[in-house]
Amino acid sequence: MSKLFWEDFYQGRVFEHGPRRLPRAEMIAFAAEFDPQPMHLDEAAARATMMGGLCASGWYLCGIVMRMIVDAFAHDAASMGSPGVDEVKWLIPVRPDDQVRLRATVIETRASKSRPEMGIVRFRHEVVNQAGEVVMWLENPILFGRRGASA
Amino acid sequence: MSKLFWEDFYQGRVFEHGPRRLPRAEMIAFAAEFDPQPMHLDEAAARATMMGGLCASGWYLCGIVMRMIVDAFAHDAASMGSPGVDEVKWLIPVRPDDQVRLRATVIETRASKSRPEMGIVRFRHEVVNQAGEVVMWLENPILFGRRGASA
Repeated sequence: MSKLFWEDFYQGRVFEHGPRRLPRAEMIAFAAEFDPQPMHLDEAAARATMMGGLCASGWYLCGIVMRMIVDAFAHDAASMGSPGVDEVKWLIPVRPDDQVRLRATVIETRASKSRPEMGIVRFRHEVVNQAGEVVMWLENPILFGRRGASA
Repeated sequence: MSKLFWEDFYQGRVFEHGPRRLPRAEMIAFAAEFDPQPMHLDEAAARATMMGGLCASGWYLCGIVMRMIVDAFAHDAASMGSPGVDEVKWLIPVRPDDQVRLRATVIETRASKSRPEMGIVRFRHEVVNQAGEVVMWLENPILFGRRGASA
């Protein structure tokens, strides 16, 4: 068992995952359900927008980040969820069939004062495309169980 | 035509949408794709977690917020997208078949210095459940075209 506890997430530790291709159909299907705006739905309509062509909804990319977090480390960790997100920046449009990878860096860790069985880890999650550009990043805290604590 | 431009989003203006029911199957389908953790996938497994039962992924709720933003006002506005999110707080678990509504309040507006055809509007988006509780909120800037500007 290689299960990860709070103690395993030291400052500066990096987790990587991917690359993962973002198919046009998946991008559009997400937008149709959650973000039906022209730049996310239709190539011709998108060309007339500031984005200059079809691009992924920023919220789809957040979903992709979450999935890569799970696949990279959370599936094998004593993860207890997250209270929120500190900041998200969408920097560069993500296009159909772009290939992206996750680089998750631990930027801070602290024990919980109120819950000794738990600790908090703040991450900076960067999404990097096939050209090596950081297309978005987000920072958020994730809660983890501590090694040896009974939940 | 009631199309909304930057000038229409004055500080304190509130847009509301909903209620919208969040079906169990939709909640689980999202989690299976983007956030496959026990508390979002399986009732029995979720009962053993800190969440005390199946609850929606926070990212699914962000998607629902975005969809309600589009349905409430963005579909009829000169919306030009958003550079990111300032903060998200997930406060109370959202359960299968909860009914939620959006309350979007304009908290700040400013013209763009570099792009005279565009303005920035900062919103606080609150999600309220059937018991009147704010279950989550997020704040973010959205860009809108200005009235009479040629894009």
